Amino acid sequence: MVVGIEKAVSATDSVVSSARKTPTVIPSDSVINLARGDPTMYQPYWRKMGDKCTVVIPGHDLMSYFSDPGNLCWFLMPELDDAIRTLHRVVGNAVVDDDRYVIVGTGSTQLFQAVLFALSSPHNPDTEPLSVIAAAPFYSSYPEETEFLRSGLYKWAGDAYSFDKDGAYVEVVTSPNNPDGTIREAVVNREGGKTIHDLAYYWPQYTPITGKADNDIMLFTFSKATGHAGSRIGWAIVKDKEVAAKMVKYIELSSIGVSKEAQLRAAKILQVIADDCANSGPEKEENFFEYGHRIMSERWEKLREVVKRNGVFSLPKYPRDLCNFKGKDTDSSPAFAWLKAKDGLNCDNLLREFKIVSRGGTNFGVGSDYTRISMLSLDEEFNLFLERLAAIKGTSNGNYL
Amino acid sequence: MVVGIEKAVSATDSVVSSARKTPTVIPSDSVINLARGDPTMYQPYWRKMGDKCTVVIPGHDLMSYFSDPGNLCWFLMPELDDAIRTLHRVVGNAVVDDDRYVIVGTGSTQLFQAVLFALSSPHNPDTEPLSVIAAAPFYSSYPEETEFLRSGLYKWAGDAYSFDKDGAYVEVVTSPNNPDGTIREAVVNREGGKTIHDLAYYWPQYTPITGKADNDIMLFTFSKATGHAGSRIGWAIVKDKEVAAKMVKYIELSSIGVSKEAQLRAAKILQVIADDCANSGPEKEENFFEYGHRIMSERWEKLREVVKRNGVFSLPKYPRDLCNFKGKDTDSSPAFAWLKAKDGLNCDNLLREFKIVSRGGTNFGVGSDYTRISMLSLDEEFNLFLERLAAIKGTSNGNYL
Repeated sequence: MVVGIEKAVSATDSVVSSARKTPTVIPSDSVINLARGDPTMYQPYWRKMGDKCTVVIPGHDLMSYFSDPGNLCWFLMPELDDAIRTLHRVVGNAVVDDDRYVIVGTGSTQLFQAVLFALSSPHNPDTEPLSVIAAAPFYSSYPEETEFLRSGLYKWAGDAYSFDKDGAYVEVVTSPNNPDGTIREAVVNREGGKTIHDLAYYWPQYTPITGKADNDIMLFTFSKATGHAGSRIGWAIVKDKEVAAKMVKYIELSSIGVSKEAQLRAAKILQVIADDCANSGPEKEENFFEYGHRIMSERWEKLREVVKRNGVFSLPKYPRDLCNFKGKDTDSSPAFAWLKAKDGLNCDNLLREFKIVSRGGTNFGVGSDYTRISMLSLDEEFNLFLERLAAIKGTSNGNYL
Repeated sequence: MVVGIEKAVSATDSVVSSARKTPTVIPSDSVINLARGDPTMYQPYWRKMGDKCTVVIPGHDLMSYFSDPGNLCWFLMPELDDAIRTLHRVVGNAVVDDDRYVIVGTGSTQLFQAVLFALSSPHNPDTEPLSVIAAAPFYSSYPEETEFLRSGLYKWAGDAYSFDKDGAYVEVVTSPNNPDGTIREAVVNREGGKTIHDLAYYWPQYTPITGKADNDIMLFTFSKATGHAGSRIGWAIVKDKEVAAKMVKYIELSSIGVSKEAQLRAAKILQVIADDCANSGPEKEENFFEYGHRIMSERWEKLREVVKRNGVFSLPKYPRDLCNFKGKDTDSSPAFAWLKAKDGLNCDNLLREFKIVSRGGTNFGVGSDYTRISMLSLDEEFNLFLERLAAIKGTSNGNYL
């Protein structure tokens, strides 16, 4: 199903009004908005790092449109290209051999649309638009981002599980999946079919790193990797030169490249993380991913405890697996809790009664008994969320207190 | 006419290959690429300013998606909003009363597309797509940016002078115009017709500021105002709340906002310019616009001299006018030279023989006897350009040496 523009506007409104009410100390009666995955959880880590990741930009620097005119992606800063490849090598979560193209975008949101353009152009008026599909539950923004301009090049075609149209298609494979945290592979494996792998959450704080992803088109985003959502930096790793060139063309036509200030800062921060992870001396401090995983594990443990105790909801279970990065068996701790209300209740509505704003299951192509909750909020918000969740109890008459 | 994607790709290729060859000292046989308006001319000014415009960004700063949740444009940083309004007040080139909405974009390129979306949605399948027109010669990217996604919402409908279709339309009014530097008003003034005013070049270094622009939708860009093209910051000033809200929605769906690093830096630089301009003490140094206008005037004088001497080309003439900002009569010194070859020659091809890459007239909806040349290059490039232009002489047999 397609999420309408109107619905999206009202969802934004609610996010906005809540974010306005997010001081460090949250009034006990205020609404907590966990509908959007604003990764504010990581702020204390970066504050602790002090000047290590500070960037200084003089007024005369970074002025030209061009960053690396010899590169196919002429607006990509070489230091960001290097930092991205270095970090993937250290973490072991993606193949970044020299023959792969790195394309930077204004968040992976812009890159997703760049891929759709790349796979569907040049336009052939005799063929149907490219069908864009994803297995439900899928990221709620895919349908909107695909549909909002009513492009003749591509068209949202819904849940991959029920896809039976002829013609060209691209399946978006999000792994770990947003909203439900599961590890995924393509569902429709038709000859000539294309895939986009959205690997935004394939980082050690969220899931065991079980191998280097080696897909044709892989998307990553600074927001979810390190928590720097405000920078609007994403990157794609692409095998095919023609696809990469068309993605670059899309970014040229939609924004003539990507902010250099943001690129410079992302390069610095990704490089610092990579260096910290590679440092194996005896004085080794907790690196970024260890920190992230520790906080996420603690939050998941607390959440599972509350859910178990009040008996109203359920959560998915994830297999424990060997994480190559950590070198040991590890639990998953996804960026979102995919909460299901028992007895077929509307889970989002139920939570709203308790002043918790989440994003309901229908946005993700499934039933309203599911809802998605960000696990990446500040501590104060997360704790208040747990407190309120714990207060929801089923009563004998089927009401909730 | 619509500039095809293929053509655009090859245009980019040429820009890229040339920019690769742009060291500070230019080999005398290298190609000079003046096809794109990369505003590198301003670098020496900003270098001279030293630390005055330096920004310092710690690793924990600017992390959230949200900048100003209470604002309709929730991703706009308040300091950028303030700096934009202050600068327009000091320069006197646009009305920025409190009831106007400021929307930030990833360059004015993204904002142009945001306006098209805003004026054509929600989609009504029973009506024709919104016709997008501009009087020729028009900015070469408008047709491409309008057409490349084959949107069902809007459609490029060509030269405003020959527009005779029924139905909804929007006319893009670029003033001073890109490519030819003329001051413009809407050509089609049909009831219910909309206009977008692209005022990228309505700054004192390019043209006399004759009054405060007060149009419904006005676009400006950091690139052309100050030379910071690499930041990808543009802004719109919008009267209607609903239009502004839909533009914000477009930017949310296409990139979830705009880089905060770039916004912070733009805020700093625009504020410094505004403060310098407002400072009227006896020790007053040359402000940014005075500097820009001095360099541009010198360049135009030299260019006119060369063109007059070799007799092969002509340039537009601009009326002298009272500039309210400078408080005196001033000549125009547009960001591009709109060169016309006599005798109906292909001007772009002729210049290419002399290793000058420009953007030919057909890209702008007019004949190939015209071509556009950036006046914003570094000194070294500009001087080499003049030298080569001076070397072109008509011969008695109609050839050019």
